[in-house]
Amino acid sequence: MPALRNMDALAAYEKLAALSRHPYDLSRSAPPPDRFASYLCRGAGFDLLYATQRVDGPVLAALQELADESGAVDQFLAMKKGAVLNRIEGYASEERQVLHTAMRDLFAGHPHAPEATSLAREELAKLEDFLAGLETGRVANERGEAFTDLVHIGIGGSDLGPRAVYLGLAAFRRPGRNVHFISNVDPDDAAAVIRGLDLSRTLVNVVSKSGTTLETLTNEELARAAFARAGLDPRRHFLAVTGQSSPMDNPERYLRSFYMFGFIGGRYSATSMVGAVMLGFALGYENFIEILRGASEMDTAAEERDIRQNPALLLALLGIWNRNFLGCPTVAILPYSQALIRFTAHLQQLDMESNGKSVNRQGQKIPYPTGPIVWGEPGTNGQHAFYQLIHQGTEIIPTELIGFRYNQYQEDTLIEGTTSQEKLMANLLAQSLALATGQESDNPNRRFAGNRPSAVLMADRLTPRTMGALLALYEAKVVFQGFVWNINSFDQEGVQLGKKLATRLLDHFGRCRQDAAYNGGMMDPAGWSLLQAAGVPARE
Amino acid sequence: MPALRNMDALAAYEKLAALSRHPYDLSRSAPPPDRFASYLCRGAGFDLLYATQRVDGPVLAALQELADESGAVDQFLAMKKGAVLNRIEGYASEERQVLHTAMRDLFAGHPHAPEATSLAREELAKLEDFLAGLETGRVANERGEAFTDLVHIGIGGSDLGPRAVYLGLAAFRRPGRNVHFISNVDPDDAAAVIRGLDLSRTLVNVVSKSGTTLETLTNEELARAAFARAGLDPRRHFLAVTGQSSPMDNPERYLRSFYMFGFIGGRYSATSMVGAVMLGFALGYENFIEILRGASEMDTAAEERDIRQNPALLLALLGIWNRNFLGCPTVAILPYSQALIRFTAHLQQLDMESNGKSVNRQGQKIPYPTGPIVWGEPGTNGQHAFYQLIHQGTEIIPTELIGFRYNQYQEDTLIEGTTSQEKLMANLLAQSLALATGQESDNPNRRFAGNRPSAVLMADRLTPRTMGALLALYEAKVVFQGFVWNINSFDQEGVQLGKKLATRLLDHFGRCRQDAAYNGGMMDPAGWSLLQAAGVPARE
Repeated sequence: MPALRNMDALAAYEKLAALSRHPYDLSRSAPPPDRFASYLCRGAGFDLLYATQRVDGPVLAALQELADESGAVDQFLAMKKGAVLNRIEGYASEERQVLHTAMRDLFAGHPHAPEATSLAREELAKLEDFLAGLETGRVANERGEAFTDLVHIGIGGSDLGPRAVYLGLAAFRRPGRNVHFISNVDPDDAAAVIRGLDLSRTLVNVVSKSGTTLETLTNEELARAAFARAGLDPRRHFLAVTGQSSPMDNPERYLRSFYMFGFIGGRYSATSMVGAVMLGFALGYENFIEILRGASEMDTAAEERDIRQNPALLLALLGIWNRNFLGCPTVAILPYSQALIRFTAHLQQLDMESNGKSVNRQGQKIPYPTGPIVWGEPGTNGQHAFYQLIHQGTEIIPTELIGFRYNQYQEDTLIEGTTSQEKLMANLLAQSLALATGQESDNPNRRFAGNRPSAVLMADRLTPRTMGALLALYEAKVVFQGFVWNINSFDQEGVQLGKKLATRLLDHFGRCRQDAAYNGGMMDPAGWSLLQAAGVPARE
Repeated sequence: MPALRNMDALAAYEKLAALSRHPYDLSRSAPPPDRFASYLCRGAGFDLLYATQRVDGPVLAALQELADESGAVDQFLAMKKGAVLNRIEGYASEERQVLHTAMRDLFAGHPHAPEATSLAREELAKLEDFLAGLETGRVANERGEAFTDLVHIGIGGSDLGPRAVYLGLAAFRRPGRNVHFISNVDPDDAAAVIRGLDLSRTLVNVVSKSGTTLETLTNEELARAAFARAGLDPRRHFLAVTGQSSPMDNPERYLRSFYMFGFIGGRYSATSMVGAVMLGFALGYENFIEILRGASEMDTAAEERDIRQNPALLLALLGIWNRNFLGCPTVAILPYSQALIRFTAHLQQLDMESNGKSVNRQGQKIPYPTGPIVWGEPGTNGQHAFYQLIHQGTEIIPTELIGFRYNQYQEDTLIEGTTSQEKLMANLLAQSLALATGQESDNPNRRFAGNRPSAVLMADRLTPRTMGALLALYEAKVVFQGFVWNINSFDQEGVQLGKKLATRLLDHFGRCRQDAAYNGGMMDPAGWSLLQAAGVPARE
């Protein structure tokens, strides 16, 4: 492992700062043809096209230096082998390994972290057996009928990644299998989902690593109450995905339990049992293994030291160039694929919870910006929504456009001489170039300044394997950025304060309820004053 | 109408700039109790709580001055009465009135824009008759059966607002009626929706003001092909919402046509027929009128000149304070209501397409930042996703939290002494205070700097009436900001360039297709080089 230093302590930092005073000008004329051909980086089924970034040879060389000096790839390798990277030196912290990559390190002779991978194999074997039981009828409902629906209850990492992958691959669903999600503590979320279901043929998959997540336990209780009202035995319907010996690890309450591990953060857990149980039910075991295969291939591609051969690392460095040197506070992720409708929501957690930090791995305040604000919606929808601001607003927004050469359902039609898929891809490419070049006009309202950087990620088709690769690509991008910024991308202390204040307020509500004069404390229009009654603000 | 001047030409601008050097400090101790009580603004069923904004008496007085000097309310009144506000002086522009408010100005004796409101009444009468026909069986399918499903095809404003409202009010659906949406030109979007439907009992509502929207026409053709394959007559199933005498205004092709008008921009059109037909089908005519009633009430509240009595105007000014004086490039909209899952996506279009501009209403480049980047997801989900960055990241993110005192389905349960609804609201209030006060700690990784501004919008319950009010509140917020920034919030020239380049590329694809050697031009990994073959970049 290299020494962990701040980015601005590296020699490449000054070089990049100097280069950023005159970044490559994309505007006015289209980039030369050879730029398109050479600014292309391939790995694990994806092409990263970056001709429309504001970089040139010297910037790329300095970014390579930044990667080398920070030891980004060495840190990545150390992570895969089980180094304790989830920590802050000299202060109380989680002190954990970071081994989500071990969950899919199944395809080479020698896994990087054999113990963790062997735990993954055990859980996969349990899952394969359970899914086979669903096929043969060994696992069935009270009347011996097959299960048709699964309700996945989880929040944050136990919801966003698995849900994004499910929607991404819904075209590959097994016939007669449907999945539904409950995440929010808003009771209307559970009510709306449970209403439409035949509970007798429904499995409920409850996912919480700690086994103590307020939202998830509350929604589990709402679901259990519905099963009880329907006269059904929850023990025949409820599955658990949780940490070993968590309060949820209780065979008396669940048909099956699957384990996740302390060395996997929630937002990195889609390829662990957190995603596996639901995705295996929906897509079949073999398709889930294909997701793991694609992820594993990208994990391998991420070991490459030449940034021009490593899509995840290059995307990370281009992001740092835009964030720290060109001063852009956000990045828009724009999948030109309706199936990726919730992929950006997953990336919001993955990226912002990992890298939305102000303290480095030595506990010092960091003097440069870290994780950007990640947002976006699928194209072409977004073009009819917020692209106005991306093209002509006062803020520069780097974009990452994700596209596929072929569609999933293979249903299409020629209209005005082109297919819908061609229309989709034409729009993606046209946006990328329009953002770069801009447009002159005598009408100032029709002027486009250009020089809006974009990157294009393209694969042949969104399949279980490319979905896995895409998931792993962004996981690696985020950790590479954290390594270069010298932050701990694996904890989330920032979520604790709100949780603590909410708990205090709920205690107060609970006490009020015992008071005969209780009139619904939270109904007070200036409800915050209750927070003071409940004893806030807090000191840690 | 007042003179239209740049914001930095107003006397209040300098005052605010001076005040912004020492903004109110929210951190360390909770705001005094009287601040909660007095920083409360009410209108049309909503409370706007703004004690956790970095404002005090002098800032509020200067913001009032800014509103007065810019003539924000006068411009709003002029808009309601039909002033041609969609224009750029001295340059070719749309030169249109802006009369979305007239669509719901039905509840007072004298509407502000009688002609536009009378057109709205005509369309509403047609809709009421059509919906009654569905009830009585006068309108039915080939076999005389009732329609159970409606597919809404539209994109941008013809999709996002209507969809957000539909999901917001799904709890109020009429039994046995379901709605589905197709928007994206991605052919998988249409395929996934059409697969699951019994087309014989399905209506298709095609929405495009111009009648020429590429995505919508393409998806309409995909749907018509599916009806043809099923041996069904599209003329018994397809509805049109379009401008009078557009290419889609063709009674030979549609069961019914409803009109929208040139004086309504797509992103402001949810309360016109663009939303009405689908929402009337799903919720019933009376519920749609309730949406209009709520919107109209907020439109009236927005006429108030005292910013402390006008929630939309105050929210607009607080946004300007955060954007222009405290330097925050984004705003996060965080509804603590799962039903509002797509409301932020609507606001992205409403806000960013309206105010993502760099040129003022005289065609000059604007010297200050305009529209922010709008993003967000429902709480408590977001708390488990990106709140880490909001609390501890290097970027300050103003937030707008939306909550309701009562839930929609009225199904809830006491767990650990409180209901889920109480948990939801406790979290909303706790976040607002945590962001403001922050927390000290000896562990630097557990420190929260605080001074993150938030505003809370709260109503009793999300109903058709409050949904309408919320929609109108944000419409008014956005136009007030545009008025103060001196920009045209009603055009979208920024979407044209990408569209033009895409068309050129598609022409090229079409020509290639006629070539026997065509091997799928867009399959070229460096597909952009095709753009050059197709003759880009563009000059207007």
